[in-house]
Amino acid sequence: MKPENVVLSEDGRSVVIIDQTRLPNRTEHLTLTAPEHFYEAIYELKVRGAPAIGICAGMGLYVCANRFDETDEEVFLSKIHNVSVYINSSRPTAVNLKHGLDRIENAAHSMKGCGVPAMLENMRSECIAVQDEDIAMCRAISEYGLTLVKDGDGILTHCNAGPLATSLYGTGLGTLLLGKERGYTFHAYTDETRPLLQGARLTAYELDKAGIDVTLICDNMASIVMKQGKINACFVGCDRVAANGDTANKIGTSGVAVLAKHYGIPFYVFCPSSTIDFKCGSGADITIEERDPDEIKTKFYAEPMAPASVKAYNPAFDVTDAELITAIVTEKGICRYPYTESLTALFGGG
Amino acid sequence: MKPENVVLSEDGRSVVIIDQTRLPNRTEHLTLTAPEHFYEAIYELKVRGAPAIGICAGMGLYVCANRFDETDEEVFLSKIHNVSVYINSSRPTAVNLKHGLDRIENAAHSMKGCGVPAMLENMRSECIAVQDEDIAMCRAISEYGLTLVKDGDGILTHCNAGPLATSLYGTGLGTLLLGKERGYTFHAYTDETRPLLQGARLTAYELDKAGIDVTLICDNMASIVMKQGKINACFVGCDRVAANGDTANKIGTSGVAVLAKHYGIPFYVFCPSSTIDFKCGSGADITIEERDPDEIKTKFYAEPMAPASVKAYNPAFDVTDAELITAIVTEKGICRYPYTESLTALFGGG
Repeated sequence: MKPENVVLSEDGRSVVIIDQTRLPNRTEHLTLTAPEHFYEAIYELKVRGAPAIGICAGMGLYVCANRFDETDEEVFLSKIHNVSVYINSSRPTAVNLKHGLDRIENAAHSMKGCGVPAMLENMRSECIAVQDEDIAMCRAISEYGLTLVKDGDGILTHCNAGPLATSLYGTGLGTLLLGKERGYTFHAYTDETRPLLQGARLTAYELDKAGIDVTLICDNMASIVMKQGKINACFVGCDRVAANGDTANKIGTSGVAVLAKHYGIPFYVFCPSSTIDFKCGSGADITIEERDPDEIKTKFYAEPMAPASVKAYNPAFDVTDAELITAIVTEKGICRYPYTESLTALFGGG
Repeated sequence: MKPENVVLSEDGRSVVIIDQTRLPNRTEHLTLTAPEHFYEAIYELKVRGAPAIGICAGMGLYVCANRFDETDEEVFLSKIHNVSVYINSSRPTAVNLKHGLDRIENAAHSMKGCGVPAMLENMRSECIAVQDEDIAMCRAISEYGLTLVKDGDGILTHCNAGPLATSLYGTGLGTLLLGKERGYTFHAYTDETRPLLQGARLTAYELDKAGIDVTLICDNMASIVMKQGKINACFVGCDRVAANGDTANKIGTSGVAVLAKHYGIPFYVFCPSSTIDFKCGSGADITIEERDPDEIKTKFYAEPMAPASVKAYNPAFDVTDAELITAIVTEKGICRYPYTESLTALFGGG
């Protein structure tokens, strides 16, 4: 199996992505070659999911660098830095975006004195390494995830943290997909995840395609299915984890965590270590992206669902307090509260 | 001011309603004259809101009776009973539906021996009385509501419990509308209320029309606005309150209540006494209506938002446990937990 959502071309001059805004009705591929293409694809959520954004942005930096036809090392490094800053400005919340760009930029810097072609070659290797590492991380995370559930469990998901959001398996969905391969029968309840409906359009699509039993619900139905005893655990991905374990993820995640605590259901965050930001002390330090109100009022609809004069507030993420999180599942192991200690123990403070 | 959502014609041969499924883009009136019209209008939520359903159904029973051209009292009573049972089967959760029908049917029975014309005349008077009582109840509820908040408060609403759902003022929104008349400035945060978007289409519309500051949010944003300190109280209506205070209301209400408890925010249920069902011991005895999965997957959208093969679960209501409710605000006063005692004290067990 190879990732299909973000693919670097053989000649290193383009990246082909699946346009996630067109799913589930159409599987369309987009070819990205210029800084503006990558900015737009990330900003408009054509490629989304913290790990996938990091992979795509890094590849984007390499592809743009490959097209500079620049031979002067200093000029080359200055140009790629500008592109990196520009692509990084497309979305503020996920730490993987900057992380993915920095790795590819550093790959160029580390070959200083060897010439631009060597820099480019090293950037390319690093792009492939980043994606390969993500596959290995997702698989390791999913293995740890399987130790937390049992056959037949009902799992509530929010947003999308599957293969489309990563490379293969995913983070939040990886346990379900790897479990399916091993013969587990899970019953997924998937929050549709307003306003952009990643749960309905992407998670339900990915789980259904994999042959996993999935039931779509509206976000406001999480409480009733938990109360009815249908849910044994909640699985979410994340966009940034602070050093104390506070976790930014898709808007609504904190509400699911509060409900899970009320109903006594474990709430698990699935998190490649690249998503942990040790420079960020707590959730209060995480910038929350606010998006266009029309995503709530008009997007996807045949006609507007609220009067034009009505305001809407559209934060793309919220922060789930560390004490609401039963465990943070990483590729290196499972961390439990208090996270300042457990994350440092596992990762040595980054 | 007179109610505009449900209007009995002068000649008693029709009821004119505002089709709530067409708001906010179009204000369309429908003329209902036959049992099937009333069943369909209620089932399809063209008229909705527990009190409005009760008013409309009762008027419907009278209008249908008026069109029987029946002179035999026994045959007449038998016929109206059949119509009452039929209209009552349109939606199972709101107790006001049966209550509204029973009052009009009883108005006929109480004139037994006086002839069908006298029965009809009494049914007509009762229809008017039911609506007038609702107006007075909503106003009284709103007066009590104003004692619970202060000028400048942020109020989170879920679904719609305004004039469209009742007669005038509404239950859950009455405090905001009456407060506006008195010069209060409230800041409403309105859950859009998936899947049928009564919050976006109706509550935001009604509050905006009344000149009240309103911000539309997705249901899954209730947690972040509470955490940000924007919310001082949550206001909801209800469809059935059990004797112990467990409350059935629009799907998602129980989730709002759990969040409010977590964030230390009062959660108020606004409830005309006709909504209290003393025959119903607890929430476990309330039938929860399950609706068409396509309301989640396709309704309102320009194209489907989930693959056709994906299941969806679509409960129309959920039950909020009594202990999550800070107070139940009725037209006779404010009840607090434990409700078995406080409701009985105020209403004498019905």
